[in-house]
Amino acid sequence: MAMKVALLGCGVVGAEVVRLLNRQSADLAARVGTPLEIGGIAVRRLGRDRGTGVDPALFTTDATGLVTRPDIDVVVEVIGGIEPARSLILDAIKAGKSVVTANKALLAEDGATLLAAARAAGVDIYYEASVAGAIPLLRPLRDSLAGDRVNRVLGIVNGTTNFILDRMDAQGAGFAESLEEAQALGYAEADPTADVEGFDAAAKAAILARLAFHTQNVTAADVHREGITEVTAGDIASAKAMGCVVKLLAICQRAEDGLSVGVRVHPVMLPREHPLASVTEAYNAVFVEAESAGRLMFYGPGAGGAPTASAVLGDLVAVARNRLAGTSVGEGGHDTGLPVHPMGQTVTRYHISLDVADRPGVLARVAEVFAENGVSIKNVRQEGFGDDAQLVLVSHQAPDAALAQTVERLRRLDMVRAVASVMRVEAFADA
Amino acid sequence: MAMKVALLGCGVVGAEVVRLLNRQSADLAARVGTPLEIGGIAVRRLGRDRGTGVDPALFTTDATGLVTRPDIDVVVEVIGGIEPARSLILDAIKAGKSVVTANKALLAEDGATLLAAARAAGVDIYYEASVAGAIPLLRPLRDSLAGDRVNRVLGIVNGTTNFILDRMDAQGAGFAESLEEAQALGYAEADPTADVEGFDAAAKAAILARLAFHTQNVTAADVHREGITEVTAGDIASAKAMGCVVKLLAICQRAEDGLSVGVRVHPVMLPREHPLASVTEAYNAVFVEAESAGRLMFYGPGAGGAPTASAVLGDLVAVARNRLAGTSVGEGGHDTGLPVHPMGQTVTRYHISLDVADRPGVLARVAEVFAENGVSIKNVRQEGFGDDAQLVLVSHQAPDAALAQTVERLRRLDMVRAVASVMRVEAFADA
Repeated sequence: MAMKVALLGCGVVGAEVVRLLNRQSADLAARVGTPLEIGGIAVRRLGRDRGTGVDPALFTTDATGLVTRPDIDVVVEVIGGIEPARSLILDAIKAGKSVVTANKALLAEDGATLLAAARAAGVDIYYEASVAGAIPLLRPLRDSLAGDRVNRVLGIVNGTTNFILDRMDAQGAGFAESLEEAQALGYAEADPTADVEGFDAAAKAAILARLAFHTQNVTAADVHREGITEVTAGDIASAKAMGCVVKLLAICQRAEDGLSVGVRVHPVMLPREHPLASVTEAYNAVFVEAESAGRLMFYGPGAGGAPTASAVLGDLVAVARNRLAGTSVGEGGHDTGLPVHPMGQTVTRYHISLDVADRPGVLARVAEVFAENGVSIKNVRQEGFGDDAQLVLVSHQAPDAALAQTVERLRRLDMVRAVASVMRVEAFADA
Repeated sequence: MAMKVALLGCGVVGAEVVRLLNRQSADLAARVGTPLEIGGIAVRRLGRDRGTGVDPALFTTDATGLVTRPDIDVVVEVIGGIEPARSLILDAIKAGKSVVTANKALLAEDGATLLAAARAAGVDIYYEASVAGAIPLLRPLRDSLAGDRVNRVLGIVNGTTNFILDRMDAQGAGFAESLEEAQALGYAEADPTADVEGFDAAAKAAILARLAFHTQNVTAADVHREGITEVTAGDIASAKAMGCVVKLLAICQRAEDGLSVGVRVHPVMLPREHPLASVTEAYNAVFVEAESAGRLMFYGPGAGGAPTASAVLGDLVAVARNRLAGTSVGEGGHDTGLPVHPMGQTVTRYHISLDVADRPGVLARVAEVFAENGVSIKNVRQEGFGDDAQLVLVSHQAPDAALAQTVERLRRLDMVRAVASVMRVEAFADA
């Protein structure tokens, strides 16, 4: 007896899912143990030819009716956004359907509710496609590392910003110019806010943190977020001078005392020899540090119709198999309840470039400001002379609040003409 | 009610598994849904203190008795080698136990038998630790990519040889010298044969090919295998001159007609910009090309007690959960039966350096030999003059047999004083 699949949405990803379901139907049937069959496709408007080649009678505008139809086994949601996706998924779960979704916004905002509902109903909800496209990442984090303790996750999870920063690095171009190039090539949308301001990456960071630390207490709103719009060609040049590259990272980190976690998205300077530094163009990669497993990295395309559809189909095979076996994964049953600590308490390290007056006593005064805020200096160098003099400092690790406060104080010093560049530094040898 | 685990073997990995089971018992219990408890540990000789801190009464020399004991749920095998591991695993499966093993040799030689036995008994056999240590790789290939079609797998799956080749590349050292360094640092064993002759990588290649192509028809004996003992400092220098690095790769590739697969292990020249080229020291990485997902890479430590134990525990959590849910994965049920074609039919590309007489007509004669064997030349350059003249050629893609035949014919030409270097080239722009 075939397993019936309802599809919510038939855009780029949905149409690709339909295409692959048809093209690989024999292989998929063999892997699941029974054929997968499309039972219906919910769309906003009927009548458009979506190039799927499926029976037009399968299309419907009644999404709620479709997800609760008795013959449907699995619901695949690729509409995106919070509503109506959330209500439809909850309706499907209540009706005993398993769910596959690519919806990062919804998972980041309200994942705990969805997981709890699925657990209560004894059905699956899988969402591999919501983070880093086709890269198998969420299930490895959840399953393969289930016997380990993850301490830190560093991820390049937004292809648009990685493309822009890569162009700035390779060509010395500014942000605006590189964004235009990304838009011309289809890597950035006309309104690039969700990408360049870090909202997309923040949603993914919340999902990664929940899985890595087995805590249901993380939503997108808990993620400290800074985008890349203020990264300058000068920042990139400063990074180069230190043997670093600038990347927008999603960082999930267990506090040293193990009692809380920090989750944040911001640009960082990363040493060029770090495996994440060589992730170029619009590729994604996630670096995981686990106590026993050590340093792992997962790399691949982070977006696009075909890669996302691949992740959706992988999930679909899994939930269909589970359903056939009469079981479900019950994710989220182990909730450590670890809270998220505020950004000010997160231990970071700063790179600071100051335009200074070139006169005796400047370094002494600057060093004093660091000391007053309890921040140690790891190294300092002066560049240029006279009106062009610049002090470039890298701090030791300290709470982010103390570092931010140090920058504020430096800004107010007479002898500091301007704070030319401030950026956090990650993955240095002693960090 | 606790899930009882029997451990076969208590060496470096086994002792680490015990340590982690004890240290993380609360977390593991929460993730499984019930506590995991060590029911017994089979060792060859009693009385040695293995630093595990467990009750000495748990140790036994009666492995068969242990794996068939009615109260045991899961058997973890970390003895290695073919026998007695195979008999013990089959006994355990017949007695209804699920199995976790790190045994690459056994899985490569007789994986199909073990999988079929487990399927028939309705129990699980998981073996993530058998390839690339802690890197979550086998389950992503099996599960996450279940909705996709894998076309090629390129893997650095042996840390010892990667360490040696990395040293040769970084220091210009020869093979013997780099092997000694690897031995001094504990990266190579006193008898390095299994690593440097490619046996270890070939076993892993067989396991990867089975999973990637869903075929049960691949054993270690089907893998074409060449080691790194004949790689010279000159080969490395030639590679550098082409912007390449030399790596020992396990390569699993679907034939163009889709009707067979090639599985091989040999040194290759790889462009420095390929993600695998920057995998240094003893790290492992596996690059997967899938039709929809695109190019994926999995990176991490490939060996060591703690990483291997992490993979074993991840598997243990999964099989324990399945057992608690009364289900099993039934791997190998989808057998495409794709056969392995001989190396001669595999499409490859050669880099060839010839010491030649510096006189007119040499290139014409050399080119003729290529043409006679149906092999096209992609590019050719002459280096040096007079007695030092060298012709460096890179072929287009051709069946390996035609390329090998070309080299044999070139060797016999009067004007060719010596074939200085022959190596296959992978992942060029048009390959």
